[in-house]
Amino acid sequence: MRIVRPPEFKRTTGGFVATEEALESKGGIGRAWANVRRVLIGRRLATAEEHSERVSKRIGLAIFASDNISSSAYATEETMRVLALAGVGAVAALTLPLTVAIVVVLAIVVLSYVQVIKAYPSGGGSYVVAKENLGVVPGLVAGSALLVDYFLTVSVSVAAGVAAVTSAFPDLHAVRVTFAIALVVLLTIGNLRGIREAGNIFAAPTYLYVLGVFGLIGIGLWRVLAGDVPTAPPPIQPFPPEGMQPLTLLLLLRAFASGSVALTGTEAVANGVQAFKKPEARNAQIVLIVMGSLFALIFLSISFLATSIGIHPDESETETVLSLLARSLVGTSWYFYLVQFSTALILILAANTAFNGFPRLASIMAVDRFMPRQFAQRGDRLAFSTGIVALALVSSFLIVIYDASVTGLIPLYTVGVFIAFTLSQGGMVRKWLRDRSRGWQVGAVINGAGAVATGVVAVVVGISKFQVGAWMVIAILPVLVAMLYAINRHYRSIEDVLLIAATAPVRVQPTVPRVVVPISRIDRASLRALSIARGLGGEVHAVHISYDTEGAAAFKRRWESVVGETIALDTIISPYRALMPPLSNIWTRSTGVVPDGRSSWCSPSSCRGTGGKLCSTTRPRCC
Amino acid sequence: MRIVRPPEFKRTTGGFVATEEALESKGGIGRAWANVRRVLIGRRLATAEEHSERVSKRIGLAIFASDNISSSAYATEETMRVLALAGVGAVAALTLPLTVAIVVVLAIVVLSYVQVIKAYPSGGGSYVVAKENLGVVPGLVAGSALLVDYFLTVSVSVAAGVAAVTSAFPDLHAVRVTFAIALVVLLTIGNLRGIREAGNIFAAPTYLYVLGVFGLIGIGLWRVLAGDVPTAPPPIQPFPPEGMQPLTLLLLLRAFASGSVALTGTEAVANGVQAFKKPEARNAQIVLIVMGSLFALIFLSISFLATSIGIHPDESETETVLSLLARSLVGTSWYFYLVQFSTALILILAANTAFNGFPRLASIMAVDRFMPRQFAQRGDRLAFSTGIVALALVSSFLIVIYDASVTGLIPLYTVGVFIAFTLSQGGMVRKWLRDRSRGWQVGAVINGAGAVATGVVAVVVGISKFQVGAWMVIAILPVLVAMLYAINRHYRSIEDVLLIAATAPVRVQPTVPRVVVPISRIDRASLRALSIARGLGGEVHAVHISYDTEGAAAFKRRWESVVGETIALDTIISPYRALMPPLSNIWTRSTGVVPDGRSSWCSPSSCRGTGGKLCSTTRPRCC
Repeated sequence: MRIVRPPEFKRTTGGFVATEEALESKGGIGRAWANVRRVLIGRRLATAEEHSERVSKRIGLAIFASDNISSSAYATEETMRVLALAGVGAVAALTLPLTVAIVVVLAIVVLSYVQVIKAYPSGGGSYVVAKENLGVVPGLVAGSALLVDYFLTVSVSVAAGVAAVTSAFPDLHAVRVTFAIALVVLLTIGNLRGIREAGNIFAAPTYLYVLGVFGLIGIGLWRVLAGDVPTAPPPIQPFPPEGMQPLTLLLLLRAFASGSVALTGTEAVANGVQAFKKPEARNAQIVLIVMGSLFALIFLSISFLATSIGIHPDESETETVLSLLARSLVGTSWYFYLVQFSTALILILAANTAFNGFPRLASIMAVDRFMPRQFAQRGDRLAFSTGIVALALVSSFLIVIYDASVTGLIPLYTVGVFIAFTLSQGGMVRKWLRDRSRGWQVGAVINGAGAVATGVVAVVVGISKFQVGAWMVIAILPVLVAMLYAINRHYRSIEDVLLIAATAPVRVQPTVPRVVVPISRIDRASLRALSIARGLGGEVHAVHISYDTEGAAAFKRRWESVVGETIALDTIISPYRALMPPLSNIWTRSTGVVPDGRSSWCSPSSCRGTGGKLCSTTRPRCC
Repeated sequence: MRIVRPPEFKRTTGGFVATEEALESKGGIGRAWANVRRVLIGRRLATAEEHSERVSKRIGLAIFASDNISSSAYATEETMRVLALAGVGAVAALTLPLTVAIVVVLAIVVLSYVQVIKAYPSGGGSYVVAKENLGVVPGLVAGSALLVDYFLTVSVSVAAGVAAVTSAFPDLHAVRVTFAIALVVLLTIGNLRGIREAGNIFAAPTYLYVLGVFGLIGIGLWRVLAGDVPTAPPPIQPFPPEGMQPLTLLLLLRAFASGSVALTGTEAVANGVQAFKKPEARNAQIVLIVMGSLFALIFLSISFLATSIGIHPDESETETVLSLLARSLVGTSWYFYLVQFSTALILILAANTAFNGFPRLASIMAVDRFMPRQFAQRGDRLAFSTGIVALALVSSFLIVIYDASVTGLIPLYTVGVFIAFTLSQGGMVRKWLRDRSRGWQVGAVINGAGAVATGVVAVVVGISKFQVGAWMVIAILPVLVAMLYAINRHYRSIEDVLLIAATAPVRVQPTVPRVVVPISRIDRASLRALSIARGLGGEVHAVHISYDTEGAAAFKRRWESVVGETIALDTIISPYRALMPPLSNIWTRSTGVVPDGRSSWCSPSSCRGTGGKLCSTTRPRCC
C-alpha cells in the first residue's frame, strides 16, 4: 500500500514528484507566510530551471564588477591623500605613475584570474586555488580571509553610501544605523530573489555610473588635449603645500597600498563562473577582462585629468576629488548632480558583489565540508539563501557595533583580500611548475609577479593599518581556520560512525520498545495515549506521579477499577513536587540493535548514557 | 516487571518515593545548574515541611506590613503638598484633620479585613470576597485591579528607593535602571528562597524603621508637650505662602486621596493567611491590627509634630517632610542619618509585600482556573515561584520603559487598589445582609462606611490622576478581565473534551500505527531508525526524497540490493528542493481509538486536520 496522496504527488517513472501543491502549508499561518514569501522573493523555482536563471555577460558584469568598478570613484583620491603628506609636488609628479603601477598589478591579477577560470571552470577563487596547490591550511587561510572581507565589503559600502546621503541630508544622521540596516535588508531581499532578478534590479546603477563617468572623461580629455584646461576649484581645506613628511619609500608604498583598495572584488568573477550562461568559463573570462579594462580606463583617466587640471584633495574630506573634477569640467550643472548621484548609488551597490561572492564561496567550502552543509543548499529561488542571510546578519551586526562609521570600519578592510590574492597567485605558480603545461613559463612569470606584488601590498596594508584595526582581522584568521577545521572534523567523525561498507550484509531486526506513559488523571487524552502505547508492540508501563501518599493511593484505586490489570501501573510519590526529573530517571534501557552483525549500535552520546565512552570509531563499541 | 530503579526510588506502602537523589540531573550542565540553584535559593523543601516554613507574627508583620508601614514615610507630605496649593494656612489647619480622616478610613478597612479573615480563613482578599458575594465579573475586576497594583508597587517602590540613593550619590543616576533591576533580582532571589527565609532577610529593615521613627516621635512629643518647640528648618523652595488655588472641596478631596496612598498593602495580610503559623486566622488578624495601629500612630504623630513645629513641604522635592522633621528635632546627627537610611531601606522593601501578595493572589486565581495553573504550583522552596518570577519580569519591564522614573510611574498607582477595596467592602455588606449572622448590623455598617469611603477615594484618585496616567490602568482592566475569562474558557473547553464519566466503561484497545521513516541514505542511523520502526508493531514505510530522477533511481537500486522487499519504499522527487513540506503532506491517517464506546476521539485541532470542526463538546464528533 502506498502512503503518498495521489492528487498532490504526480506519478512518474522514477517515483512520485512533489508538485508545488504538495509543498503548500495547510494551516492559516503557513499559508499567510507563503504569500508574504511569494511577494517578497517570488515563486518557487524548480532545479531544472537553473539554466534559465543564469546570467548574460551584460548582467554578469553589473553583478560581479560593481565592487571593483565602484573603487574608481575613490582610488585616485586615496593615492593622492597619502602623497599630499609629502607636499603638492609629490601629488603632481607621482599620482599618475602610481596609478599606472596599480593598473599593472590589476592587469596581472586579472590575467591570473583568467587562467584560474580556465583551470577551475566549476568556479574557484583563492580558496580553491590555494587549497589544491598549496594545501588545506593555506586554502582555509585564503577562504577565511575572503569571508571576512566580504562581511566588511557590505558594511563599508553601505556605511559609505549612507554617509554620502546623510552629508546631503544632515537630518538623516540620527537614523543612519537604521537606514544602513534597511539597505542591507533591501539587498538581502533582492538577492534572495535569485541572481538573475538581482542582476536586473541592480544592473542599471552600474551602467549609469560607467556612462556618466565616461561622458565626464570624454569632456575632460577633449578640453585638456585641446589646450582648454579648466581651472581647478580650490579644496575647502587644502593640505599644506610644502608637505608634512619627507617623501620616503614607506610613504610611496603606503600610497600604493591605499590605491590598491581598487583590487577588491576581482575575486568574485572567478568564484561565480557557474552563474554565467554557457559557455560559462569563456563568458566569465570576457566579463573579467571587460571589468579590468573599464576600471583601468576610468582610473587612469581620472588620475591623468586630476593632475593635469591640478586638482588637490580636500583634507576635511568634505568634497571628493571626483566631485572637484566634475565641478571643474561641467560646473554645478545637472550633469554634475547625475555623476554625484550615480556615484552614491554604485558605492552602495558594491555591497551587492559581496552578496554574490560570499554565498558562492561558502557553498564551495560547504561542499568540502568546511562549512555547515546548509550553505551548499539552494533556496526556493536557486540562490544560496543561507549564505545571503548569514552575510546580511553579520554585516548588520558590524554596522551596529561600529555605529555605521566608515572611519571605524575601513581599517579592517582590504587586509584579507590581499592575503587571499597572494596565496592564490602563489598556488598558480606552484601549479605551473608542477603541471608544466603549454606556456607554463609565461604563466609562472605572470603569477610570480602577481604573487610578489600582492604580497607586498598585503604586508604594507597590514603594517600601515595594523594599529587602527587590521590586527583584529589578522587575529581572527587563526580562530576562523580552527573553526572551519572543527566543522570538518565534526562531519568526518559522524561519517566514521554512520557509514557502513557497501558490501556489508544488512539485517533490519525489530527493536522491541519499552513504553512508559505518564498519566496524571484518567481522561480521554490519557486513554488515547495508552491505546497508542499498546499499539507500539512493546511492554507498556503507566506511571503516575503524586505529591502525597493519599493521592497515590486514590489514583491506584481508580486505576484498578477502570483499567484493571491490563497495563502495569507504577505510582511515584514526589515529595519535592518535581514531575520531569523522576520521569527522566526511570529505567528505560531498550534492547540493542544489530545492523550488520555487530553487537550493538553506539555513538559517543549513546555511550555517555551508559556511563562509558566510544573506544573505537571504525568499530563502534562502548567501553 | 517494575521500571523504577531501586537505589534512587524508595519503596513505601503507597508506591515509590522519588528521593532527592532521583531528582538529580545526570548531565554536567544539569549538575552545575543544580549547584547554582542550591547556592542561590537553597536546598529543596519537601511538601511535608510546609508547616515549618510558616511564619510567626513577628516575621509576618515584617513581610506583609512593610508596604503599609513604609507609607508613613510620605503620607503626611503627600497630604501637605496638595493643601499647600491653597496656602500656608490650609496646611497648618487641615493636615491633622485629614490625617485623622484617613486613619479612620484605614481603621474601617482594617476592621473590615479582620472580618474577611474570619470569614475566609483559607486566605482571601478582595478577589475572593467580591467573587463570592458580588459575582464573577466584580471578582475578576477586583483581582485584575490588584494584580496591576502589585506590579506597580514593585516598580514604584524600587524606583523611589533608587531615587533616594541617587540623590545622595548623583554618579549613580546614569545607571539607575540597571540598579533598579538589580534590586528586583535581589528581591526575587530572596523570595524564591521561601517565605520564612525572605522574612528573616527582610525583617530587620522594617523593625529598624519602626524603632528609629518611634525614637524620633518620642523626642518630638516630649519637646512639643514640654513647650520646647524646635524651630522648623526652612524648605529649599517653599510653596507661595498665600497659595495658588482657592480651598475648594475638590482640593480637599485630592489632599485626602493623596494621603490615602497609605492604605495600599492592607490587602496582603488577608491574602496570605495560610502563610502564618497555627492558628492562622487569629495570627493574621493580630498582625493586621498591629500593622494598622503602628501605621496610625506614626502617621498621626508625624502630622501632629510637623504642624506643631510648622514644617512646610519643599516644592523642589529635594528634602522630604520627614527629613525636615528629623533635622529640626535631632539636627544632622548620627540619628538623623539612621532615620534617613532606614527610610530608604523600607521604601525599597515595600516591594517585598507585593512579592508576597501577587504570587498568593495569582495562585488563588489559578486554582479557580482564571490564571494558568503553573501559578498554583509551589516551587522547590514551597514559594509560588511562577508568580514571583512573573512579577519580577513585568515590574522590571515597567521600570525599563519608564526609565526608573517615580514621577512617571506614580500616576498609575493606587487607582487599582481602591477599586479592589470598594468591591470587597461592597461584597462584605452583601454577605452581612444575606447571612444575617450574629452582629450583622454592626458589620454591615462598618463595611458600608468602608465601601463609601474607599469608593470616594477611588473616584477622586481616578479623576485627579486620569489624564496623567490612571486612564491606562482603567483601560487595561477590561482587557485583563477578558483575558482571565479566556483562560478560564480554555481550561473549561479542554475539560469538556477530556473528561469521561466516572461510571463509563473504558476499553484500551491498541491503536496500530503506520510508521513513516524518512531515509536520506542507507547508513547506521537510518538502519537503526528502521529497526525501531519495525519494533513499533505497525506497517513501516520508508520514504526517500531526491532532488532529481537519477538520484531517486540510484537510491532505489541501492535499497533493493541492501534492504530488499522487507520494507516498502516510496521515492519522492522534490523539484523545488523542499524536504519537510512533502513529508508533512504524506497520507498518514491512523485508526481511530475507542476509549468509551464512541466512534472516534476528537478535539478541535484533530478535527481541523480532517477538514471539519468539532460539532459538540459534550459528545465529541467532527462534522
